[in-house]
Amino acid sequence: MKINITNFSSKDEGFYSKLDSILAWDSVSDLDVQASVLNIVDSVRREGDSALVEFTNRFDRRQVASPSELEISKEQLQAARARVDSGIVLSLEAAAKRVNDYHEKQVQESWQYQEADGTILGQKITPLDRVGVYVPGGKAAYPSSVLMNVMPAKVAGVKEIIMVVPTPDGFVNDIVLAAADIAGVDKVFTVGGAQAIAALAYGTETIPKVDKIVGPGNIYVATAKKMVFGVVGIDMIAGPSEILVVCDGKTDPDWIAMDLFSQAEHDEDAQSILISPDALFLEKVQQSMERLIETQSRKAIILTSLESRGAFIHVESMEQAIDVANHVAAEHLELSIDNPEEWVGKVRHAGAIFMGRHTPEALGDYCAGPNHVLPTSGTARFSSPLGVYDFQKRSSLIYCSPEGASELAKIASPLARGESLEAHALSAEYRILESK
Amino acid sequence: MKINITNFSSKDEGFYSKLDSILAWDSVSDLDVQASVLNIVDSVRREGDSALVEFTNRFDRRQVASPSELEISKEQLQAARARVDSGIVLSLEAAAKRVNDYHEKQVQESWQYQEADGTILGQKITPLDRVGVYVPGGKAAYPSSVLMNVMPAKVAGVKEIIMVVPTPDGFVNDIVLAAADIAGVDKVFTVGGAQAIAALAYGTETIPKVDKIVGPGNIYVATAKKMVFGVVGIDMIAGPSEILVVCDGKTDPDWIAMDLFSQAEHDEDAQSILISPDALFLEKVQQSMERLIETQSRKAIILTSLESRGAFIHVESMEQAIDVANHVAAEHLELSIDNPEEWVGKVRHAGAIFMGRHTPEALGDYCAGPNHVLPTSGTARFSSPLGVYDFQKRSSLIYCSPEGASELAKIASPLARGESLEAHALSAEYRILESK
Repeated sequence: MKINITNFSSKDEGFYSKLDSILAWDSVSDLDVQASVLNIVDSVRREGDSALVEFTNRFDRRQVASPSELEISKEQLQAARARVDSGIVLSLEAAAKRVNDYHEKQVQESWQYQEADGTILGQKITPLDRVGVYVPGGKAAYPSSVLMNVMPAKVAGVKEIIMVVPTPDGFVNDIVLAAADIAGVDKVFTVGGAQAIAALAYGTETIPKVDKIVGPGNIYVATAKKMVFGVVGIDMIAGPSEILVVCDGKTDPDWIAMDLFSQAEHDEDAQSILISPDALFLEKVQQSMERLIETQSRKAIILTSLESRGAFIHVESMEQAIDVANHVAAEHLELSIDNPEEWVGKVRHAGAIFMGRHTPEALGDYCAGPNHVLPTSGTARFSSPLGVYDFQKRSSLIYCSPEGASELAKIASPLARGESLEAHALSAEYRILESK
Repeated sequence: MKINITNFSSKDEGFYSKLDSILAWDSVSDLDVQASVLNIVDSVRREGDSALVEFTNRFDRRQVASPSELEISKEQLQAARARVDSGIVLSLEAAAKRVNDYHEKQVQESWQYQEADGTILGQKITPLDRVGVYVPGGKAAYPSSVLMNVMPAKVAGVKEIIMVVPTPDGFVNDIVLAAADIAGVDKVFTVGGAQAIAALAYGTETIPKVDKIVGPGNIYVATAKKMVFGVVGIDMIAGPSEILVVCDGKTDPDWIAMDLFSQAEHDEDAQSILISPDALFLEKVQQSMERLIETQSRKAIILTSLESRGAFIHVESMEQAIDVANHVAAEHLELSIDNPEEWVGKVRHAGAIFMGRHTPEALGDYCAGPNHVLPTSGTARFSSPLGVYDFQKRSSLIYCSPEGASELAKIASPLARGESLEAHALSAEYRILESK
């Protein structure tokens, strides 16, 4: 069947503004959502468990009588793991191992150095005490996201990891629970939405207050996270997922078509863009897509995504392809080309870079090792994949020797007085040593 | 004169809830502020320079006719530097050198490793392209903050740094401009408030769009930053500044009194807390304060701050003092004790740790080297001092060898199918090699 995908060229007039209009994405959290979330967050903050249970029963259509019913025990996690198909469990375990090994390279260590006069400066690194991981429930529950959000916290040395996952109509996803067990989650509660975020941020009688909340969610969850930011840390607010494939025209067109489908099948707002200097290749991928689409189980979603947000871009050269990639700052950048190592140095902005014809995004989504929680909607210009560094924080260390303090005080004093902060100046000056 | 400072003991019943009530701080950004900021941000986003000039003239009582008047040239920065007292310029230069040297230790490097089958995994580190630094104007303008916000970005390799500083009634602070010149700011614009944040986030004809905005500001600035978060990166929203001094009772009480004053003089909401196992010492510090307060140029602010938010806490032991410090997670923690290195390992949460009797916070504020932009209001539980890492971001690198891809695809495929993502599974399966 015909797929109507936007097709344009870097030679077109107003190319970059056309590109920007295709990329444009505004996460709209309207005033109704704001007001509703504010009410939920305030209620849970003030009333704790009773509000949490009430919202959970109302929004998830449940009949929870006591807050203790909200917790899923370790034994229940293990039972779920035992129920899951063994091939999936083995894959989850293999993926967890690879994700763990990669993230161990991200662990940061404390450091310090001593100056000639004995003054010591440094930075002390400590893990967060307690972290909350939000996992969406229902049909769009992704066990891989459990691994990707929990493993970096475990590697960082976070002592307690609390997972929340809504179970609308009581539906529990065994693979999600198996993943929680494999990743080493400490406690699991079947709550979701803004009420779960509020419970994690402020604590209730049942849900422990955490220091940071990570994990994806719908607009209510995202709005609640933004609201409690400052009370706790949060990860980035994710937009729809996107891929930018740069291909030199020499990869099997079916492979590229399927790589683009794999992004498009996420949801109707997902974005798949292909860039090539080879116009004929773009046509071939179009033909592959039109043939392969017929048998896709998520055909309707793929079509909507491709026709509303997808694009094929013809460029004049690989240099230009990389320029466009830097402009887009894609969440996923696939360099399906010869010698990707020669081009990767020119890439300034991307969440993750998939190099070569044998590295489809899908491998990174599940098991290559790097995190699949990546900056979306161009935020790769200023932010990073989720990592161990998101679960460690730093404290500056300053020890001044008496001699060092004396010299520093002579620098600090005029600056403090220049800012009209006299007590700062005096506090420094007290440490000036009498000349011998 | 008598100073009424809250005085309590860890032996008091309900000690931690009393402590929490003293620490409590809610940054209230009420709906009026929200609505007003939303209007300003939207106007600047839609109308660019014309709205920016209009708001600047209105709020800063200026008569700007053309947007080009908003820029302060390099020559004007240098002229300002030449007008500033040479002692202050020398101190700024010395401070900049030390801040630079410390922050160079924070630079992160790209890394990668190769697996046995040829698969390469890693992380590529790149600086942000362009950063905006907000500097408050008027009387409370702090040149030291210019150094502290700009230097880490310079060390990170940010190519262009845009500073905005409001000049209410046209008042320009020469020391601030001198600091901008020394720190190496690329462009300076005399705009402030929510309109400056909007201009940096979305760009106008005159103000370049940046990738991240850092720097402190009033409630309008903080609200605007929170609003544009996601379009650009932002630093933490700062609450009032605080210090927690732990003293064993053997530091000169006048020194400790002045260290507490130096925090209290910032503003009425600043918080100074002293903890000691020595009850007599607490009394001596009280006496020092009551004597020293008389001559303080910022006496009224210090008194309000100490009497409304200050506290003296008597504890039973140093162990307990550190427990309390971890509960508070103070922005500034001063360990005015013997052998601070023996205790610092037990500190889990603090923005900066000042070790020993010769290390008052004031030295760290200006010139010790570490950053003075630190997590406030207990956010040291999950966040870090401003640093080079805030101006670098990471991209995951994944290169799969054909053999590596084939093995990974066998792990990914059942997981993708477990999540009902068939195109993910197919995209991976295409890379499975035929068995030879």
